[in-house]
This record gives sequence, C-alpha cells and structure tokens, in this order.
Amino acid sequence: MQNYNEEMYGLGSRRSEIRELFEYGRQLAAEKGADAVFDFSLGNPSVPVPDAVIASLKAHHDNPGIHAYTSAQGDFEVRKKIAASLNSRFGAGLGADSLYMTCGAAASLCISFKALCNPGDEIVVPAPFFPEYKVFAEAAGARFVSVPFNPADFQPDFTALASAITPATKAVVINSPNNPSGVVYTLETLRTLASILEEKSELYGHPIFIVSDEPYREIVYSGEELPFVMNYYRNTLVCYSWSKCLSIPGERIGYIAVSPRAEDERAVYAAICGAGRALGYVCAPSLLQRVVAECADVRPDVDAYRRNRDLLYSELCAMGYECIPPDGAFYLFVKSPIADAHEFSELAKKEGLLLVPGDSFGAPGYLRIAYCVSYDTIVRSLPAFKKLKSF
Amino acid sequence: MQNYNEEMYGLGSRRSEIRELFEYGRQLAAEKGADAVFDFSLGNPSVPVPDAVIASLKAHHDNPGIHAYTSAQGDFEVRKKIAASLNSRFGAGLGADSLYMTCGAAASLCISFKALCNPGDEIVVPAPFFPEYKVFAEAAGARFVSVPFNPADFQPDFTALASAITPATKAVVINSPNNPSGVVYTLETLRTLASILEEKSELYGHPIFIVSDEPYREIVYSGEELPFVMNYYRNTLVCYSWSKCLSIPGERIGYIAVSPRAEDERAVYAAICGAGRALGYVCAPSLLQRVVAECADVRPDVDAYRRNRDLLYSELCAMGYECIPPDGAFYLFVKSPIADAHEFSELAKKEGLLLVPGDSFGAPGYLRIAYCVSYDTIVRSLPAFKKLKSF
Repeated sequence: MQNYNEEMYGLGSRRSEIRELFEYGRQLAAEKGADAVFDFSLGNPSVPVPDAVIASLKAHHDNPGIHAYTSAQGDFEVRKKIAASLNSRFGAGLGADSLYMTCGAAASLCISFKALCNPGDEIVVPAPFFPEYKVFAEAAGARFVSVPFNPADFQPDFTALASAITPATKAVVINSPNNPSGVVYTLETLRTLASILEEKSELYGHPIFIVSDEPYREIVYSGEELPFVMNYYRNTLVCYSWSKCLSIPGERIGYIAVSPRAEDERAVYAAICGAGRALGYVCAPSLLQRVVAECADVRPDVDAYRRNRDLLYSELCAMGYECIPPDGAFYLFVKSPIADAHEFSELAKKEGLLLVPGDSFGAPGYLRIAYCVSYDTIVRSLPAFKKLKSF
Repeated sequence: MQNYNEEMYGLGSRRSEIRELFEYGRQLAAEKGADAVFDFSLGNPSVPVPDAVIASLKAHHDNPGIHAYTSAQGDFEVRKKIAASLNSRFGAGLGADSLYMTCGAAASLCISFKALCNPGDEIVVPAPFFPEYKVFAEAAGARFVSVPFNPADFQPDFTALASAITPATKAVVINSPNNPSGVVYTLETLRTLASILEEKSELYGHPIFIVSDEPYREIVYSGEELPFVMNYYRNTLVCYSWSKCLSIPGERIGYIAVSPRAEDERAVYAAICGAGRALGYVCAPSLLQRVVAECADVRPDVDAYRRNRDLLYSELCAMGYECIPPDGAFYLFVKSPIADAHEFSELAKKEGLLLVPGDSFGAPGYLRIAYCVSYDTIVRSLPAFKKLKSF
C-alpha cells in the first residue's frame, strides 16, 4: 500500500513554473536589491482595494451574526443582490437560486466540474488556458482535452474545436478576457462556438455545457460590457471571482451562476450543491459574502491597467517584439524572439525580468507578462527588454 | 450520457436531516412566533465573537497587501505564529511547514483524505460521528467503515475497532470532544488506540494514520488541556477549525497539522499541498489567516456553555432522560425514550423542540441536542421536555 496518494504528492512537490519564477525573484531581490528585479510573473492585482470594499468590511465586521454559518449555497439576501446586479446589466433572468457562492474561482471550477462530470467524461479547453484547469478537470475524474488557437488572432481554432468534441464531451471551458493572452473573445466567436455546441449536443443527444471562467470580466479596455455568455448559449455555467476586479485575490470569494434556461437546470444546480458538499465547500466566507454583495456594482480602476498596457505594448512593438494585442485582463502575451520560450525566460532572468513561458498554458513559443505592477516598474524594465531583443 | 453527476445530484437534492429540522423551525417560528420554537438542531455558536477577534479584524482590514494571495499553504508568518502557540501548549515541535492553512474543518478533512487515500483505501470511524465524514471519505475515493461505540461510556469499542482494521485501512478518524455525544476521549482511550494502530501498522507493513478532527478542542469543561494526539501517536494529522472556539463558523478558517514525527512526513505534507491544489483550495482566506494567528491564544467563553450544559443535563436527568454526561463541545446526547428516535423527534417537533435523531451519526436510538443557544431558551424549553417524557 502507498503511504499517501502519489498523484497528490506529485502535484504538491512539483512547484508550478510561475511559483518557481516568483521565488527566484525574491532571492534575486535579496541579493541585488528590489530595483534589480522586474517581476511580471504573478497575477496579483496592483490596483489598491477600492475604498467601497474597505468601507463595507468596516461596516459589517462587528455586525451580530455576520460570522455565523450562512446557507450552504450562500446567504439568500446576498445571492438576491448579486442576481439583481447581473440582471440589470445583462437581463439574464437569474434568481437567487441560480447562484451558488464559492470560495473563489478555483472553487467555482472544481465544484462545476465535479457536478457535471462522470468518470471518463471529457472537458475541452481552447488554448491558451490557465494551467490549473487540467488539474481541476482530472481531480473531477474527467479527461482534459486541449485544442489549438488561431495564431492570427488567438480566437479558438473552430475546426480543431469541432473535431475535438466527441460523445464523451461534457463541457467546453472558455476564459475571456483570457489568461494568459489578454485577448477578448468576439461576439462572432461566441456565436460560432454556440452554434457548434448546439449542433454537437443535438448530434450526441446530450447537452454540452460552456463553463465560462470570468475573473477578468470587468477588466476590459473597450469600455463596453462583454457579452454575457448565457445570453448566447443556454447550457452555460458562469464561474466568477472578485479576486481581480476588487483586488482581493486572498479573500477567496466568487460564485457559480447556472443559466435559468439550461437543460435540467434545477438538477444541475442540485448537483452543484452536492459537489460543494462533497468537496467540503459549503458556505463561502460569510463576511466577504456581504461585502461583495454590497460592492456588486463597484468597478476596478481599469485606467491604471490600461496605462500599463499602452506603455508596454507600444514600447515592445517598437522594439520589434511580436505582441498579441490585449483587450482585457492584465496580461501581455509576446512571441518569444527565439524558438524556445523557456530558454528566453532564462535569458530574461539574467536581466532581472521574470516572464512565464507559455508552454504550460498550451502555447509554446510565447511568454506571459503580467503587467499588474506599478507603472514605474514597467518604465524601468524597458532597457532590459531592449537588451534582450538584440541578442 | 448523464447530463450531470448523479451522485452529486443525490448529495445536493437530499437535504440533511439537520437542515430539514432547521427549515421546519423557521416555518414554525413564522407561524407561531419565535417563542414557540426551541431550536436545538444546529451547531452555530451562541457565544458572541470575542472582542479580540473584532479588534484584530478592525486592525487589519485596510492594511495594504492583506487581501493579496498568500503562499498556497498559508502566509509563512501566520503559520509560524500558530505553530509557536501549539508548541508552547503541547511541546509538539511543529514548524511553520508542519501546517497547511485551510478554509475550515470540512476543507481540512477533504484535503487530508485526498492526500492520504488511493481508491479502495478504507477510512475507519468510531461511532458516533459527524455524518459528512462519510461524504468526504467517499469523495476521496475511499471506503467509509464505521465501528460501534461502547454504550456504557461512548468511548470506542476497541474489539470492534481492531477487527475493522484491514490491510486496506489508511486512517482512523477521531473527534474529541465529540459531535454528537459531547464525550471527551480519555487518555487511556488514546493510549489504547495508539497501541492498536501501532500493532496493525506493523502487521500490515504501512502506517495507519489518525486524523484527529478537533473543532471543539477548546470547549472542554474539566478546565484541563486535552492531550495532543500527535504526542501519543506519531502518524497523526490534526484537522482544526476556529469556527466553534472563536464563534466564526461562517468565516471558514482552519488548518491541517502534520506530526513532525510522521512516517514520510515531508511527502505527506507535499501530498496535502497537492490535494489542496487539486480541490481548488490553495490560499485560505487571507484576512482571517492574520486574525486567527493574532488570536491563537484567545479562548472561548466556556462558562456560558457550561451553564447551559449543567442546567439541561441536570433537569433532563431529573425528568428521567438517560443522558450521556458531556465533558466538552456543546452537544447533549440523550437516549430516545421510545425505541425509534425519528419518531421521538417527530413528537418533539409538535412541541416546538427540534432534536436531531442519532441515526445519521451512527447511533440510532439517540437524539442530539445542540445547546449552543441562549440560557433562556433552555429554561423555556424544559416544560416541553417534561411533557414528552410523560408520553
């Protein structure tokens, strides 16, 4: 008998590449000073927590009962407020009972996958993707199937997507604005995707869900609301987190929204409640539930990220880097000037630049730059980018 | 293909008995007034949140960086403080890297089971037990094996326990002070258990872990510290939560402590990190991490619970109820005056008394009374208890 679960041991002992880089940066800063390190490795928001969030924390933290258990799926009034906010933006027709409050986006995804999947089901994910999707899908007993992107615009390669869908496909995961590319899916992409999935659902005789992972929904530069996926495809689950938009990634608060028009909608919601229970997730953190409900209409300071994006994008393009134009999130995805992005990342480390190779995101040959840092950091990093380009 | 996971649907659509009772109580209160309902169904602490906790929340909520991601296993300084507090109480020799901060006791258990178990492994649990243990064990792919208690004192039946342990046994879960019985395991019980498990580990050639679920550790009436399990048995994981002792069950904050003397201790800790990752649990809520570290030495107002216990225990005994003497937690476990505890619970509901039948706790014929209510509620409930006894 094994003394522990080898697979879990593997996941816990192999550090992620992002974490490796981050730790390297800390060492380098200790040796050479913080000014010598330009840490673009992590998606920790640099915009301060909005005043409204602090005020709400302050207003609620000593309310009697605020720290007691809420309903397993989240406080009813909280869910009602959030549903109302979403309905006023998107006319989505969500009820309080369409929402399940979670302990952040990772929890939203783990619970959704566990609720939907039976062993052997497949979860299809267009690259590039957040690497943990694979871990979460496999933990739910599903098979993770990645499909290529169209390198011209980083929208999905629909031919590849359509042929990746089999009778075993349970869901397609999308993430727009995208981590790591910063690309926003167009309305046309959504419509094409919906029509492929409708056809395949019909063909295989069961619904194929879209699981839409939307932690960056509020960080878009066009100034327009993104289309709300469930308005274009009925069998949709939205996985949300306030980590990025309210700059509170440590607080672990989000939700799953089940489209009111989904097939077997009440049963899917019940399965989500069951998966929450089986994974130990009932009752999301109660103080934060009240805070996010109260701040449901608070928007992040997108201008700060836009300023970073504009500077970095224009300067890197001017240097000759091939950059994917980012319309959202706070990531810039650049083509590695040399074929091997790992090798380039190593060269960059020597200049104090921490850039994550795209391989684990399903996009080898690219590098992710998390520009949720100070403007000054970007300004000071430019000479290093320039030097690297001339190698 | 099933449109969702039937097992999760089952878990989410069958309400727990406790939740059913609670909802019934709310309806009854709406119909007949709150005074007509004596809700002993839930373990929601009635003692107010200690001032030190509120002060700590207030001191930290607007600190820059407090809402950012911490390390996956929890902030290093937080873990150091908590380890120091445990070491000063128990001389346990824990390091910061012995601790993994979690989103509450349910998370602690789910992560521990997933880290330890391979499919087909068995988790042995002496009755009576918290019903969700079975759900959590099965979610980790393990088989849940319950063993009877000794009805004389509600300590484990060691003969039954020893014979329940097979080559497939990975862990034994203990919970002292116990939910639902309120019984505290004696030092003798711990020593006997340790010696059985040492012998069986030797016999089967692999460690059998104790997973000690300790959310009620600080709620004991003897005034003495409970023995710290890992000081008596090396292969121990402690699952802790501050829900009950700081009256913050909604905030979901706890830890897993791995005994520094456990076999393959570093690998087990890594497997816990991996399981946290696979289940979507990395980084426990960050504000609360700081609060519990700062409040690691704060103790609950046990006197309030003791007053409740003394009144309820002495009055029910005087009425002729057969009560298990509770030395900890805030539950009184009474023998049903009629054979079928469900039937008695139904009779009690008619009097506005909400008592949970012991069947789902592995103890049919008993009823759980959660006396974490106001003293006044207990006083006013006594006539109903008396009336029921005379049926």
